[in-house]
Amino acid sequence: MTGEIKLAIDVEGGDHGAAVMVPAAVQAIRSDAGISARLFGNKAVIESLLDNDDGLDGRIQVQHCEGTIAMHERPVRALKTGRDSSMWAALQYVADSGCDAAVSSGNTGALMVLSRKLIGTLPGIDRPALMSWLPSVSGHTHLLDLGANVGAKAEHLVQFALMGSVTAELVDDNANPAVGLLNVGTEHSKGHEVLQAAARQLEKLPINYVGFVEGHDIYQSGVDVAVCDGLVGNLVLKSGEGLARMLICALEEELASSFSSRLRAAPVRPLLQRWLERFDPGAHNGAAMLGLNKVVVKSHGDADVNATRNAILTAVLEARQQVPGRIQEIMADYAVGTE
Amino acid sequence: MTGEIKLAIDVEGGDHGAAVMVPAAVQAIRSDAGISARLFGNKAVIESLLDNDDGLDGRIQVQHCEGTIAMHERPVRALKTGRDSSMWAALQYVADSGCDAAVSSGNTGALMVLSRKLIGTLPGIDRPALMSWLPSVSGHTHLLDLGANVGAKAEHLVQFALMGSVTAELVDDNANPAVGLLNVGTEHSKGHEVLQAAARQLEKLPINYVGFVEGHDIYQSGVDVAVCDGLVGNLVLKSGEGLARMLICALEEELASSFSSRLRAAPVRPLLQRWLERFDPGAHNGAAMLGLNKVVVKSHGDADVNATRNAILTAVLEARQQVPGRIQEIMADYAVGTE
Repeated sequence: MTGEIKLAIDVEGGDHGAAVMVPAAVQAIRSDAGISARLFGNKAVIESLLDNDDGLDGRIQVQHCEGTIAMHERPVRALKTGRDSSMWAALQYVADSGCDAAVSSGNTGALMVLSRKLIGTLPGIDRPALMSWLPSVSGHTHLLDLGANVGAKAEHLVQFALMGSVTAELVDDNANPAVGLLNVGTEHSKGHEVLQAAARQLEKLPINYVGFVEGHDIYQSGVDVAVCDGLVGNLVLKSGEGLARMLICALEEELASSFSSRLRAAPVRPLLQRWLERFDPGAHNGAAMLGLNKVVVKSHGDADVNATRNAILTAVLEARQQVPGRIQEIMADYAVGTE
Repeated sequence: MTGEIKLAIDVEGGDHGAAVMVPAAVQAIRSDAGISARLFGNKAVIESLLDNDDGLDGRIQVQHCEGTIAMHERPVRALKTGRDSSMWAALQYVADSGCDAAVSSGNTGALMVLSRKLIGTLPGIDRPALMSWLPSVSGHTHLLDLGANVGAKAEHLVQFALMGSVTAELVDDNANPAVGLLNVGTEHSKGHEVLQAAARQLEKLPINYVGFVEGHDIYQSGVDVAVCDGLVGNLVLKSGEGLARMLICALEEELASSFSSRLRAAPVRPLLQRWLERFDPGAHNGAAMLGLNKVVVKSHGDADVNATRNAILTAVLEARQQVPGRIQEIMADYAVGTE
């Protein structure tokens, strides 16, 4: 552990706001003596939720904010009118202080735009990318970009690959993460010119680039980091969420379809529970915005307290592993290599 | 029923070749007195598989072909050297005769390239598209393009939407299928210029275009036809296959993890079976290549006999509903409208 990690947590936003964010922050801080946090939002609400939280040694501070950014506010509007919001204040605090990381479950687009404005991007990064973990047969796969960028050019895909590789290395303690470029097939000739050009560049770089990979490789552990344009990543992520929900709901329907079904299902409930926990998206909550000067993590809007705590701890891990600094280093090496 | 439907079936290709294609053809023909088929492949093998099939009233003919196109052959190579293959012969027969539809479980890229060359595209269609059915909460959703085109322009997405709309109308008997454009969000401002331009054109057309839809809408029945570039569609399709396989295998593992688990699982087996059948991809096997002068259907490479029969019956349905002619009509109307 390398000194205390200081967090700025925007407690407004998401489906549940402070009611989830505050207890999640308390859980995270209780679980790790090396964390402190400043919570941004409605002070009276936050303090009422903190009421019984002794023993935190003053590791939680509260900063009152009048405004919030609505979940469906257009990011450009948030940029114009969001100055009094909890999200803006949290990011400003990270930008101006020794604070290491920001966490929010608010409007993703606004968080990206405000992070770029207030915290700034690392040298050599054109576009920060949103990266998340998806469950896989043997663990998880990092997928980026998830929608921060649509219409990525070859050089952006290369930047995503470099950022994904170094982040996976640090947060998974994996010395040599396999990085693949998502495509319609694995042969060299597949895909359009943007993918072809990105592949040519990636083959020359000192990362473990394994070539083109296909959609099923994400969940079948074909690769540690899967790289794609934000439109593709967003649709893969959200279609997968929809598919999993459909399968799980339909299984529930079958098991509850009659009295005899319910009777037969009862003894397998613990097995089903274990099955679902294996792929619990909350266990992997926390999408990283990579390419910024500090750590910024987006928690899922509908995350519960445990899942939100996991997103906060993801931010702590990235800050402790100094992900932004390591991305800066790899980008500097890359810039030298391509000069 | 509007007269006999004549099929050309390439029995080579796929994981199982004639061993699956021939019995599937026999099943299809037995199930529908209005079908006849010409099978293309190794004559001796086909005839040995037909041995006991009396009662088909001469509705199966066999045409011997020496060659096959390998599953991973590059399409351009198939175009150069595939002239003696069963796929080429089947498509040539459809092009030259009164035959209505071709079915193959062979190399998708080669099937697309040879279909364009031999059968040709309809007037107004720049690029044929591959469309398949995905299961959804309340039935199924048609998704196109699945990878025939990567880097689609706005006008291609509009063509896909028109072709998908008219095909869904005919094969689902749905007078007003809802058509959506896959994007990272539903707001008008979302996505890149290609999506924005396609949306502007689609809003003016006489189809039930419902706007941008998100990934989860595919499985959650948010739309009847989901339109996207081939890279996106292919990755959504294949990542979904990988995810479903992971979830189902993991459930099997839990249920078989110990003697007591197996004992508890036994009574729920019929419920699980019913659950899986609800989403059986074989029930919806058969991807349509839309935009060609005749019906061409691609059966999944690993389909079994029942699934392959379903792909053949999909081709029959599309031929009977005269899908190519109706696409030609809607494209002609569209051309007049945009002159």
